[in-house]
Amino acid sequence: MTDSNPTAAMIVIGDEVLSGRTRDANTNYLARQLTEMGISLREARVVPDERDAIVEAVNGLRTRVDYVFTSGGIGPTHDDITADSVAAAFGVPIGVRGDARAILEAFYPPGDLNEARLRMARIPEGAELILNPLSQAPGFRLENVFVMAGVPNIFAELFESARPMLKGGAPTLAWSLRAPVQEGVMAQDLGEVAARHPRVSIGSYPFFRGGLGATLVARSPDRAALEAAVEDLRAMLTRLGADAISETPPE
Amino acid sequence: MTDSNPTAAMIVIGDEVLSGRTRDANTNYLARQLTEMGISLREARVVPDERDAIVEAVNGLRTRVDYVFTSGGIGPTHDDITADSVAAAFGVPIGVRGDARAILEAFYPPGDLNEARLRMARIPEGAELILNPLSQAPGFRLENVFVMAGVPNIFAELFESARPMLKGGAPTLAWSLRAPVQEGVMAQDLGEVAARHPRVSIGSYPFFRGGLGATLVARSPDRAALEAAVEDLRAMLTRLGADAISETPPE
Repeated sequence: MTDSNPTAAMIVIGDEVLSGRTRDANTNYLARQLTEMGISLREARVVPDERDAIVEAVNGLRTRVDYVFTSGGIGPTHDDITADSVAAAFGVPIGVRGDARAILEAFYPPGDLNEARLRMARIPEGAELILNPLSQAPGFRLENVFVMAGVPNIFAELFESARPMLKGGAPTLAWSLRAPVQEGVMAQDLGEVAARHPRVSIGSYPFFRGGLGATLVARSPDRAALEAAVEDLRAMLTRLGADAISETPPE
Repeated sequence: MTDSNPTAAMIVIGDEVLSGRTRDANTNYLARQLTEMGISLREARVVPDERDAIVEAVNGLRTRVDYVFTSGGIGPTHDDITADSVAAAFGVPIGVRGDARAILEAFYPPGDLNEARLRMARIPEGAELILNPLSQAPGFRLENVFVMAGVPNIFAELFESARPMLKGGAPTLAWSLRAPVQEGVMAQDLGEVAARHPRVSIGSYPFFRGGLGATLVARSPDRAALEAAVEDLRAMLTRLGADAISETPPE
């Protein structure tokens, strides 16, 4: 499939994800939002709470995709090192910034904005704030890197604030066909259908419950190309004896 | 924290994860298994079903960690390109191998082992099979790269078969303390506690439901060092007014 849509990458910063203590939910959230906007998520990485690892991931990805998102490590504690690491990746200074400080001052009762909480107003030079209506401590965008919180509902709020900064593409339309035909039975024909429709990406995902079979997912930003591929897939499944095909067309 | 344990990385191969259609469950499963074995998962990546992306991830990670695991893309369909991509990463030939073919021949009824299914017997030269008691099609280990299926219960079965090929380390012990003290209140003291216990990694994870507070997770392979850090954390939380600390010591 040719794909001229904007591209993105995700960096999850989290020892707790790598130890298995928590499951990352932000990648899936981001993936669904970006897919709807016609932005292709090209890669997602989970890296530890270590400056060198974060710097390397940011610099390895920011020149290769249009947008990089990070999740995690922007709170007030000693293990929150994302803002400093992103500043280091870009080689720019970082310090407490007036507008970010003002947001926190307005939020905390007098006397509660201590040194640790002020760390959340540390913003790299040249960054734009990403506002956080939920818990106030902002994220920021530095060039094409969007630095956001790890707590899922805050991540989602920050994404909403960041959305106007993103340029979407042609939304990818997905059409799925679930049929009681095993992958191994259809694979040869399926490969031929895929080859006949180069503008459509066709994935196959087997299922093992409620019988044996596979869900085929055809994706393309081009509706006519998608419909032609789906017609071809439907004919193939019928020819292979599928008596029931459950289809989910694009919304 | 000094960490001399064996290290690992995970590569999830899956357009369906990057589009948000499915959530990857294998990274969390692997992370928990490895943590129990004293192997540190250092990075996890999700890459698309594209040969160049797979080759780059495999070659970028296999020299940096002791073990690399891949999940996905070893079925019979056209989008299953992991085995060929891993062979390409190592620069070794790949073809249908007798022992893998024999496993499939014993499994499928006569006549059902077609060309497409035979693709699942394509094994790179020099690889060792990872047996799959569930659905038979094997994974394989090529040097330090373990190639496994994406379907979660098959991934788990293959991991069991691969387990004897792994050398564990000192299991990391984790001790968590959940207390109604906000991160911003404790952050300064917490940073000092963390600095006093360099052999222990201390993470802080805020919670917003059932009141406001944070769960502190201390981790170390050294039980005495861990206990000393936890004692220090407990004293700090009490000093900061925590009237209830819920602790989960290592098993």
